[in-house]
Amino acid sequence: MVAPKAFLDFIDDHGKELIDRLKEAVAIPSVSGDPARREDVKRMAAWLLEQLGRFGVNAEAVPLGEQIVDGTPSDLDLPPILLGRIGADPKKPTVLIYGHYDVQPAQKSDGWTTEPFELHVDYSNDKMTGRGTTDDKGPVLGWVNVLEAHHALGIELPVNLRFCFEGMEESGCEGLDALVAEEAAKGDQGYFDNVDCICISDTCWLNTNTPGLTYGLRGVAYFHVTISGPGADLHSGFGGSVFEPMTDLIALMSKLVTSDARILIPGIYDGVKPASEEEIELYNKIDFSVADVEQAAGGKIAISDDKATVLMGRMRNPSLSLHGIVGASSGVETKTVIPARVTGKFSLRLVPPQTPEDVKIKVETYLRSEFAKLNTKNTLESIRMEGGSAWVEDYKHYNYEAAKNATEVSRLEHSLVGRLPTHFGGPFASPTSSLQEIWLKTPDFFREGGSIPVTLTFAEKLGKNIVLLPMGRGDDGAHSTNEKVNISNYLQGSKLLGAYLYEVAKLAPKT
Amino acid sequence: MVAPKAFLDFIDDHGKELIDRLKEAVAIPSVSGDPARREDVKRMAAWLLEQLGRFGVNAEAVPLGEQIVDGTPSDLDLPPILLGRIGADPKKPTVLIYGHYDVQPAQKSDGWTTEPFELHVDYSNDKMTGRGTTDDKGPVLGWVNVLEAHHALGIELPVNLRFCFEGMEESGCEGLDALVAEEAAKGDQGYFDNVDCICISDTCWLNTNTPGLTYGLRGVAYFHVTISGPGADLHSGFGGSVFEPMTDLIALMSKLVTSDARILIPGIYDGVKPASEEEIELYNKIDFSVADVEQAAGGKIAISDDKATVLMGRMRNPSLSLHGIVGASSGVETKTVIPARVTGKFSLRLVPPQTPEDVKIKVETYLRSEFAKLNTKNTLESIRMEGGSAWVEDYKHYNYEAAKNATEVSRLEHSLVGRLPTHFGGPFASPTSSLQEIWLKTPDFFREGGSIPVTLTFAEKLGKNIVLLPMGRGDDGAHSTNEKVNISNYLQGSKLLGAYLYEVAKLAPKT
Repeated sequence: MVAPKAFLDFIDDHGKELIDRLKEAVAIPSVSGDPARREDVKRMAAWLLEQLGRFGVNAEAVPLGEQIVDGTPSDLDLPPILLGRIGADPKKPTVLIYGHYDVQPAQKSDGWTTEPFELHVDYSNDKMTGRGTTDDKGPVLGWVNVLEAHHALGIELPVNLRFCFEGMEESGCEGLDALVAEEAAKGDQGYFDNVDCICISDTCWLNTNTPGLTYGLRGVAYFHVTISGPGADLHSGFGGSVFEPMTDLIALMSKLVTSDARILIPGIYDGVKPASEEEIELYNKIDFSVADVEQAAGGKIAISDDKATVLMGRMRNPSLSLHGIVGASSGVETKTVIPARVTGKFSLRLVPPQTPEDVKIKVETYLRSEFAKLNTKNTLESIRMEGGSAWVEDYKHYNYEAAKNATEVSRLEHSLVGRLPTHFGGPFASPTSSLQEIWLKTPDFFREGGSIPVTLTFAEKLGKNIVLLPMGRGDDGAHSTNEKVNISNYLQGSKLLGAYLYEVAKLAPKT
Repeated sequence: MVAPKAFLDFIDDHGKELIDRLKEAVAIPSVSGDPARREDVKRMAAWLLEQLGRFGVNAEAVPLGEQIVDGTPSDLDLPPILLGRIGADPKKPTVLIYGHYDVQPAQKSDGWTTEPFELHVDYSNDKMTGRGTTDDKGPVLGWVNVLEAHHALGIELPVNLRFCFEGMEESGCEGLDALVAEEAAKGDQGYFDNVDCICISDTCWLNTNTPGLTYGLRGVAYFHVTISGPGADLHSGFGGSVFEPMTDLIALMSKLVTSDARILIPGIYDGVKPASEEEIELYNKIDFSVADVEQAAGGKIAISDDKATVLMGRMRNPSLSLHGIVGASSGVETKTVIPARVTGKFSLRLVPPQTPEDVKIKVETYLRSEFAKLNTKNTLESIRMEGGSAWVEDYKHYNYEAAKNATEVSRLEHSLVGRLPTHFGGPFASPTSSLQEIWLKTPDFFREGGSIPVTLTFAEKLGKNIVLLPMGRGDDGAHSTNEKVNISNYLQGSKLLGAYLYEVAKLAPKT
């Protein structure tokens, strides 16, 4: 079961309208991290709810109550989570779609070349610039575009769909965990009835030229280690007469990781298997060179000249990064202070079978033992940890097969290539468009170095296979200035999301 | 030649007026670090100039031009330096007095129990609280009180006096060096003509019960070491695939000093002689216990249980303190950042024969060698140093003998004890006042752990003996909230400054 030509044609024929839809969405500055923008976030929710309803989705905005600030409820209402369903055919598989309609903060003065909340469409460079274009309004509208096409064409969707769109993703996903748990507990009576698999389009390709599928995320264990001594900050005239907390903290922090990224905490690698030849080969196949890593990092600082070593360092091995120190002098001035109480911040990225809890025990034991060796009179006041588990999905599941097939457009009856929105002019009209080189590739299967907590939420609460199916490219700059999505990625990506649903319908086991 | 009874009586009899003078001065918020307060600083200069003139000093306010901000002149005028002279008797020695009329910032909300710019006089606890009471308006007015007494009584001063009062001491002494050099170059035509010795009353006793004289200050070499790698801050998802500047910086910083304050830089102790038995005995005699150090530090963190070790650690040996890091995450939030460019800040306190220039070479050589060992691809971008030399004075000079004699009031014809401003009531009227226990002691001779750049300025430009003769006690809290001076210290201190001039007149070699 492949995506019908009419659907693919619809996207091509309505490119301008679909871009206008994104323009409307970007114009609503739904910044969840800024209380002053909360009404805009809610306005965005209402706008999206209306779009879903217009194309046949039975959706509602579920209120989440007041935002918790510093441990107590504030006067500020959380933006709602939109839950929706369309289709209840027991012969079709049911796919749950997650996305978010809130965005990161942005101001032109941060270094944007155009207004961040005005979509700037640059046909000649195949780019649409604006906050949220790739994270995550573009992908969310990709789903809406799929819905519109089927609604307008009167074509039945190949699967039952369930939607969960939140408005606090960029601000800690407050309220999501509880609501997902609540809906999951409702079983057939809730919005997540009979979900067979889950698709999240909220990541990007690893690079700029090969589509990718993410099947793993590292976990995180973030530590705050506090050492104190004097009653207040001292003038450094005291130096030499007292034990200084900074000296002890720097000593501890220096014992965590080597320059070449080897973690020094005893037992930290327990259970993390060395990569097999076969696994190393997988990483060597990924279309992402050491030069690509260095380009992404903005410096020639790759940990090795060996590609698999670099990629495994980021994707499949644990790492430890030192983030900074609270309570020390952090300005450029020559402040001769002996800080009284300093907190070192560092975190480990975790991979299975590491768990934050297990890592916490090992880190704490090690730090206390190293601290004892210092023979200092300062106090190791506290070791605090916040953590999230790693997630690695079974990428041989039909959910991945479907995403892979949809990405390899050559397997579609109607190639996505060549059917370009010619009415715009620009490179899309050209048969030599770079799109031809992009879109016919097998996607990279990769794990990401970071964490996406919502993935864990759904994995834990629903226990279903999740695929992270990206729309945008590796250089989109999700949280940065001049965030963009390529026009080609938005339009072809809308086809991709639709095509994915047809592939799921084809591959999911019949019930 | 001892201070005449009439002078001492005058201070006792006019205690209330002298306190009112301090009240007026404290009420002018002459915060040099706050451009918004610049007019107040100038108002303070005008007020002080008027006081000096009123009591016979030939003084002028020397303009210093515009303040330099970020390397270029700003619209902000520097406050003037007040230069003054009284007396030109070739048979008398000439004493140069330095003080400053600007103060540190202060706001009640910082934790003050009373308004910082309203003098709060608490007779029952012998305290006057307010910004500048001890640093340095109290001592400056001590000199004015001496002038007033002699002027009112028609008594000739025992020495020729020269004054240099500045208004930028709390903000880097901008303009002072150049002006002092200029005046010094004028010889007999300048304000520093025929200066025999110098007195600076801008420090405090080491403790709260024994007067002290400071004869040495450590120098400083402040380092900024910058390491960079990525083009911009990275998400810690990159961790494990790149060299991280923080890891390298923490490694370098951890190699500078041990927890128990031993500096690890090769050659750093070259030329610093181990203390002789005799010298150790000097430190053991100082009225300042390990418990006092820990009380001052606000924690039981003294580097040793041996008193001389602790005091020498602060006063006569070099030390190294780690101050902080620029460019890393310094807030309490769990920010998963890999900082792109970090600058470690640390400083050494220096003692003779160490010089900032020599120390810079040793530190730089060591850091570059240790950095090379890390085998990192990050860049050691720069090692920047700002320094000031140490200062150790000949404390067997008559200038110190004079200050010591004036402090040991038992040697004065008219004991300072017992002649208390009884018209206030309170503990001063009592013959069992704690003052009796304080004032009859031989002062501690000590070196300070910190630096006072103006001392170096005068030492280098004029080449005369300088005594640091404190008015206030060790718990005055010069730069802190609730800065205070004891009423007894202000009034007896005014007598002390006057008595010091008589002792100089007695002890200085006749010309």
